[in-house]
Amino acid sequence: MCDNNKLMRKAIQLSVNNIDNGGGPFGAVIVKEGKIIAEAANSVTNDNDPTAHAEVNAIRKASKLLNTFDLSDCQIYTSCEPCPMCLGAIYWSGIKTVFYGNDKQDAADINFDDRFIYEEIERPIAQRNVKFKQLLKDEAIVAFRKWDESESKTEY
Amino acid sequence: MCDNNKLMRKAIQLSVNNIDNGGGPFGAVIVKEGKIIAEAANSVTNDNDPTAHAEVNAIRKASKLLNTFDLSDCQIYTSCEPCPMCLGAIYWSGIKTVFYGNDKQDAADINFDDRFIYEEIERPIAQRNVKFKQLLKDEAIVAFRKWDESESKTEY
Repeated sequence: MCDNNKLMRKAIQLSVNNIDNGGGPFGAVIVKEGKIIAEAANSVTNDNDPTAHAEVNAIRKASKLLNTFDLSDCQIYTSCEPCPMCLGAIYWSGIKTVFYGNDKQDAADINFDDRFIYEEIERPIAQRNVKFKQLLKDEAIVAFRKWDESESKTEY
Repeated sequence: MCDNNKLMRKAIQLSVNNIDNGGGPFGAVIVKEGKIIAEAANSVTNDNDPTAHAEVNAIRKASKLLNTFDLSDCQIYTSCEPCPMCLGAIYWSGIKTVFYGNDKQDAADINFDDRFIYEEIERPIAQRNVKFKQLLKDEAIVAFRKWDESESKTEY
């Protein structure tokens, strides 16, 4: 428990320091066998990359370091509850435990409205603010059939 | 409409070709003023990056090219309905229109179970398969207060 607090404090420290670096107030660390293997802060504005949230950046770094897309033996400590994008990234990475500091209500209070995206995801496609339109389903399926039949694919 | 089909066919072509490149069967293009400004395929296994879905890769490329994290004047054409991570990335990028080919049922049929993540997102934190635990909320909030008071921040 003490270690968990120490690791969360590192994520919090990254979130605080990042404001001075011109970035958003978010930090995250990824831990394997009790050791930090990746630390990152939000770099959306500094890198001009809307996907560069702290958790996504940390997952990218950890995967690169371990040379695998499978982080199922890792934990993430993030200064704020993950947004849907980061939640998705965490699930795809295989991480099984998420420690977080601030929650989505705290984020909404300073105008990071992850809640809006959470609400949108739960809406049927036709009722979302972003317009979704399906096209050429019969042609798109060709790739899935080819994948299904491929014997040399790397599954993930 | 004809143009929409042409642009979707490009995304589909990327998805099909990517299988031969050792990647997953997904492709995406981002379009601004009728012109493709970024094209990408899934590179999770080739890059050892669980976040490297076609849509995320395309958003990163487009943002880099335009030198902005705001893609609200762009559209995305993706060979498959976005997973929650990519949906989140699309919302953060500001893209307002998403054209997709295959849907999440098609993806589930070849064992890309985005649906599992969609279901997890909708569950209360305590009922998810991934364990979520809040820690040090009183310390984490310091970054948000500092952000709120900062006069030099770049909002996004």
